[in-house]
Amino acid sequence: MFEAFELGRKLSKQEYKKSERRLRSAILEAQFALGKTDIPVIVIVSGVDGAGKAEFVHRLNEWLDPRGVSTHAFFDVSDEEREHPFYWRFWRAMPARGQIAIFFGSWYTEPITSRVYGTMDSRDFDTSLQRISTFEPMLVADQALIVKLWFHISKKALRHCLQDLETDPNAHWRQLPTNWKDQEQYDSFATVAERAIRRTDSGDAPWIIIDAEDRHYREIMAGTALLDALEARLESVAAATQVAKSKAGNESFSEQPTLVDQIDLTRTLEQPAYRKCLSKYQRRVRRLSWKAFNKKISTVAVFEGWDASGKGSGIRRLTQGMDPRLFVTIPISAPSDEEQAHHYFWRFWRHLPRDGKFAIFDRSWYGRVLVERVEGFATPDEWRRAYLEVNEFEEQLVEHGVIICKFWIHISMDEQLKRFNERKEVPYKRYKITEEDWRNRKKWNAYKEAVNDMVARTNTDYAPWTLVAGNDKKFARIKILKTVCARLQEAL
Amino acid sequence: MFEAFELGRKLSKQEYKKSERRLRSAILEAQFALGKTDIPVIVIVSGVDGAGKAEFVHRLNEWLDPRGVSTHAFFDVSDEEREHPFYWRFWRAMPARGQIAIFFGSWYTEPITSRVYGTMDSRDFDTSLQRISTFEPMLVADQALIVKLWFHISKKALRHCLQDLETDPNAHWRQLPTNWKDQEQYDSFATVAERAIRRTDSGDAPWIIIDAEDRHYREIMAGTALLDALEARLESVAAATQVAKSKAGNESFSEQPTLVDQIDLTRTLEQPAYRKCLSKYQRRVRRLSWKAFNKKISTVAVFEGWDASGKGSGIRRLTQGMDPRLFVTIPISAPSDEEQAHHYFWRFWRHLPRDGKFAIFDRSWYGRVLVERVEGFATPDEWRRAYLEVNEFEEQLVEHGVIICKFWIHISMDEQLKRFNERKEVPYKRYKITEEDWRNRKKWNAYKEAVNDMVARTNTDYAPWTLVAGNDKKFARIKILKTVCARLQEAL
Repeated sequence: MFEAFELGRKLSKQEYKKSERRLRSAILEAQFALGKTDIPVIVIVSGVDGAGKAEFVHRLNEWLDPRGVSTHAFFDVSDEEREHPFYWRFWRAMPARGQIAIFFGSWYTEPITSRVYGTMDSRDFDTSLQRISTFEPMLVADQALIVKLWFHISKKALRHCLQDLETDPNAHWRQLPTNWKDQEQYDSFATVAERAIRRTDSGDAPWIIIDAEDRHYREIMAGTALLDALEARLESVAAATQVAKSKAGNESFSEQPTLVDQIDLTRTLEQPAYRKCLSKYQRRVRRLSWKAFNKKISTVAVFEGWDASGKGSGIRRLTQGMDPRLFVTIPISAPSDEEQAHHYFWRFWRHLPRDGKFAIFDRSWYGRVLVERVEGFATPDEWRRAYLEVNEFEEQLVEHGVIICKFWIHISMDEQLKRFNERKEVPYKRYKITEEDWRNRKKWNAYKEAVNDMVARTNTDYAPWTLVAGNDKKFARIKILKTVCARLQEAL
Repeated sequence: MFEAFELGRKLSKQEYKKSERRLRSAILEAQFALGKTDIPVIVIVSGVDGAGKAEFVHRLNEWLDPRGVSTHAFFDVSDEEREHPFYWRFWRAMPARGQIAIFFGSWYTEPITSRVYGTMDSRDFDTSLQRISTFEPMLVADQALIVKLWFHISKKALRHCLQDLETDPNAHWRQLPTNWKDQEQYDSFATVAERAIRRTDSGDAPWIIIDAEDRHYREIMAGTALLDALEARLESVAAATQVAKSKAGNESFSEQPTLVDQIDLTRTLEQPAYRKCLSKYQRRVRRLSWKAFNKKISTVAVFEGWDASGKGSGIRRLTQGMDPRLFVTIPISAPSDEEQAHHYFWRFWRHLPRDGKFAIFDRSWYGRVLVERVEGFATPDEWRRAYLEVNEFEEQLVEHGVIICKFWIHISMDEQLKRFNERKEVPYKRYKITEEDWRNRKKWNAYKEAVNDMVARTNTDYAPWTLVAGNDKKFARIKILKTVCARLQEAL
C-alpha cells in the first residue's frame, strides 16, 4: 500500500509559496465557518517518525486562529492516565463543538508501537483496532469530523534523514525518553501500520496518506486534505439544514413482555433481620472496599429507578460503612455548558474514578435512554444508538478492570403515590418532591417501556443489571448491599 | 488551648434525636437558600484521628441534598498532583458558587503531619501557615464561606478508642497506607496543631473546635456550627443587597511617571542579523526545553500587550523551535460558565503545566487589572486586590520550581494604526481586526495607566516583567527568545 506514496513528489519553493498563501486563507475561512457549527474537529497527525509530523503541527498552528485550536501530545503517560481506562486520556482532550484539536499521537500510537515491539500479540492488536472501529463512528455520529493523516516516507528516505540528524546535536528525538529504534524496525512497523490503516479506513473517518519526503509537498498536501475535509463537512451541514427535519417521532421499537413487571414487589424484610444484615454487609463492604483499594481495582455503581424509589437512601446505606476517602458520589443533573459542548459521554468519562476508588452515580448515562428518550430531549437516532455506545463504554471499563454494578430500583405506582404524599409531610424531605415528579408520574407507561428496552439491551454479562424490588425499603437496601459485596468478592 | 475541649460533654440519645431532627431541616433549608447565592462553601473537617471525622462526613452527606455537595479526600497524592504546585489539588476540588464542598483533609494536613514527623522544619512550617493566611482571605474576598472544624479528643480518650479498635479487624486506619503512629505522637501533634490553629484563626475564616469524645455531642455541635456559619453568611448577603451598591467608580490610584513610556521604541534589527539570531536562539530554546523536561522544571510564559503588538507572532517564533510534545498554548478569552462559577484564578490553575512542560498564556490573569479594570468588568475592590493575589499566585509557582517569564509588548499608537490598516488588506489577517479593537484604541490612556500600575505592582524579583519594544517586530521576537533562553539557562 505504502509504495504508492514513495514517489518522492516535490514542490518548488515558488509553487509552495503560492499554494501556501491560498491554502492558509481558505483554511482560516473554513475554521471561522466551523466555529458557528456544532462540529468538533479532531486532526490526527501520525506516521513514520522523521516524516515531519512535528513540523506540520507547527504549521497548522501558524495557519489557524489560536483561539479555536489546541494541540495534544500523548507521550508521557501520567499515573492518573494509567489508572483510568485507555480512552480516558483522549476524552479529556476532546475538542468542544466548533473547535479543532490536533492530536499528535492518538489511540493508534500505543497499539501500533506495542505490536511492533512485540509487547502486544496479534489478537489483542486486532481487538484494539476493533475498538477504534466502534469509537470513531460514535464520535462521528455526534457530528465530529475526524481527519486522519499518515505521513509516510520510504526506508531509504528515513536513512538519509537519520544520517543528516547524526550531525545535529539538537535533533529532537535524541531527547525522547524512548530510544530511536524504528530504523531497524522499519519493515515490521510498515506491516503493522498498514494493517491498522486498512482495518480502520472507514467511510466515516478515512485515512489520508501523505508522501512526506519533501517538506513543501507534504505540507500543502496535508493542508489541502484538511481543507477538503472541512469544506465537505461544512457543505453537508448547509445541505442538511435545508432538508426538513423529518426524522422526528418517538415511537418505541420493542414490544416484548415487560421485564420489570416480573419483579416480585411483595418481598419484605423485618426490622430485626434488617438490622443484622445491615451491620453485617456494611462491615463487609468496608473490608472489601479497602481490599479493592489496595489491589487498585475500582468500582462503578449506577443507580437508576423511579422517582421516590429510594435511590438516595440505598446509596447512603451502601456508603455508610465505607471510608469517605474511598468513594465519591456523583449526582447527575442538567449538564453545564462545557458538558453540553462535548459528546454526551464526555461528562461521565470526566468523573470516572482512579484505580482502587469507588464511584457511585446517582442517575447516569442511562438518562439518554430514559428521561431524554421519553421527554424528547434526544432524537430517536440519538437514543437508539446510545444502547451500543453504553455497552461499548461499559466494556472498556470492565476491560480496564473496573467492577460495574447497575441497579434499577422498582416500585409500584401505588407505592410511589404513598411516598410522594409522605414527602410533603416531613420538613427535611419536602424539597425532594417537585412539580416535575408529578409530571413524570403521568408518563409512567412511557417510562416503563423505556426501562424495559434499557434492561433488555444493556444487560450484558460483563455489566449485568440488578433489578431491585423497592416497595419495601429495607429489603431493597440489603439487596443492594449484598449484590455489591458479591460482585466485589467475585472480583477480588 | 485544647484543655477547654476535653470536658467530655455528652448528649443523651433522646436529646440527640430531638436536636438532630431540627438541625437537619434547618441545614437543608440553609443549603437551598445558599443555592440561590454566589457563595461557594468549603467545610474543612480536621482534627485528631479517631475523633470521628469520617463519621461526621457521612452524617453531613446524609443531611444535605446530594445535588449540592461533594466530598474530597486528599490522601493518596497522584503524580499529576505532585507535579503541580501544592495548591493545585485543592483548586481542582473547589466548589462552584452555591455549592458545598466537604474537604476531608485540607491544606492543613500536610504541613501539620510533616512538622510532627520532623520532615518539615519550624521555619517552613510557619511559611506554610503564612501561605494559608493569604490564601483563605483570597477565597473569602470572592464570597467563599470557609468553615473550619477541628475534632479534638484527649490523649486518654484516644487510648480508649484505640483499645476498642484493637479488637475490630475492620478498623479503617489499619488499612491506611501510612501507619497509625499518632498515639505516641499525641503530644507533639497537639503542640503543632495548636500553633497551626492559632496562626490561622482569622476573622475571615475562624476555627471551630469540637469536644469530640461523645458521638452525639460532637455531631450536634459540628452541625450547629456549620448551620450558624451558613445562616450568618446568608443574613449578611441579604443585608448587603439592601445597601445601595455605592462602591462604584473606576478612578486610578497611581500617578507615577509612566514606565512604559520609557521603553525605547526606536530599536530595530536588520534582516540578516534577525535571521542569524532567530536560528541561534530557536535552537537554544529547543535544547533548553528538552533539558527542562528531563529535569522536570516547568515554564510559564505570559504574553500581554497592545492589540496588534505582535503577541501571536512572538509566541510562534518562540514555539517554532520546540517539540510540540513539550508545550501548550493557552489563549485566554471569555470564561465558560463553569469558570464563571469559580474564583477568578480557577481557570488559570486549571491550565498549569505538569512538571517539565512549557505553558504559554496568550493573555492571562493580568486581564483582571487590564481589560476588566478599564472596561469595568471587575469592581475596583476586585482589581485592586488582584495585585496581591497575582503576586501570591506567582510566588507559589516559583516555589514549586516553575520559571515565569512575563512579557509586555509595547507599541506606539501610530504603529498600531498602521498595523490595523494592514490587517484589513491581507486576507488571512483580516479576522484579527474587529470593532472591539477600534473601541479599545480609543481608551489608550486608560489602558496605559492600567499597564503602568500592573508593571509597578507585580514586577517581583521572582517573576519580573520584560518590557518589549514592539515597533520593530524582528527586534521584539529576538528579545523574547533571548529572554526565555536566559531565564531557562539561569534556572537549569
